[in-house]
Amino acid sequence: MDEQVGAILAGLDLWAEWPSETQRRIVGAALDSFAERGFHGTSLKHIAQGSGLSTAALYVHFGSKEELLFALSRRGHAMALEVVRAAAGEPDPRRAATLLVRAFTEWHAEYRTIARIVQYELAALTPEHRADVADLRRGIERVVQELIERGVEAGVFTVRDPRGAATAVLSLGVDVARWYGPGLRWNPGELGVLYSDLVDRMLSGGT
Amino acid sequence: MDEQVGAILAGLDLWAEWPSETQRRIVGAALDSFAERGFHGTSLKHIAQGSGLSTAALYVHFGSKEELLFALSRRGHAMALEVVRAAAGEPDPRRAATLLVRAFTEWHAEYRTIARIVQYELAALTPEHRADVADLRRGIERVVQELIERGVEAGVFTVRDPRGAATAVLSLGVDVARWYGPGLRWNPGELGVLYSDLVDRMLSGGT
Repeated sequence: MDEQVGAILAGLDLWAEWPSETQRRIVGAALDSFAERGFHGTSLKHIAQGSGLSTAALYVHFGSKEELLFALSRRGHAMALEVVRAAAGEPDPRRAATLLVRAFTEWHAEYRTIARIVQYELAALTPEHRADVADLRRGIERVVQELIERGVEAGVFTVRDPRGAATAVLSLGVDVARWYGPGLRWNPGELGVLYSDLVDRMLSGGT
Repeated sequence: MDEQVGAILAGLDLWAEWPSETQRRIVGAALDSFAERGFHGTSLKHIAQGSGLSTAALYVHFGSKEELLFALSRRGHAMALEVVRAAAGEPDPRRAATLLVRAFTEWHAEYRTIARIVQYELAALTPEHRADVADLRRGIERVVQELIERGVEAGVFTVRDPRGAATAVLSLGVDVARWYGPGLRWNPGELGVLYSDLVDRMLSGGT
């Protein structure tokens, strides 16, 4: 199981959408500044300084800081979608759910900086960009809901409201980005095991 | 049970710490501005404008915007601690946990604006203020962990790691503030019922 989690996470590349070194420097500087000062506290000047470029050079690649936030949001959500899809591909629904919770939890512990920005600054996106991100979010929710429904049909899960249970499962994983940090009681893999055990009880236990 | 939840929530008063009308206007304006622009994007001028006072008048009550953030953080955490303490006072551990999850969930849905600020801007507090808030957080965690341990001793809960389970229970509730909003599928009370059922399965179900 741990090998499968490792394989899912190793298949991800945060930078896949930005082939040029310059773009990566800009996106990295935006990530650092949003994390340090918040989106509203960040100016394009901060991002230019952080990436060692002029503001004019920055405009060649990204037209505004909102565009940078959107690029990060889309990428973060696309990675989370890749994680849940890969896990849900496992044929046995109970093993798939365990794999999904482990990989999703570990991802949010490891990528907590981008996950926090992506989650907390959603309101700063333009309506069009927010709608694009909402599509990805619905995609993630659908994968989890369908997996739980598959488990209910197979008789291994007993929850009455698969959509409600999917909300709880995803919320547990996303919130890891808020509270997780170095020096805590669990490393990301251990937290994934704890959470997958608790979710398994939630989905398959009870009355 | 719903009456008990209602009684716990009705006993809370966000404004209890600020007896003067002027203080309430300042704190309310800070809350609005932090929610709209983030802590880093807010200046004392925004708060002064929002409260209809001069910056000088504002300084009479709060020395800095960090002090306002601290006042809000302390108050938000103190309310959450009141909620869990009141619920954990119920003698039967299983009913206490259900009550706790319902009230904690409803509180985070209702008070999501203050809860978001309090959770997401923690890093902006001074080390001393962060330590004060960390004490309140540990108090909340302790109440939940001790309740779960009491249930394990009574033989109604079967989790192996009460502290880990407490982390998950609190995380589910806190994260409601992030994703909950008007027009969703559940009203705050319904969400509390859904979540308390899922947590009951998590704590008492499984192997």
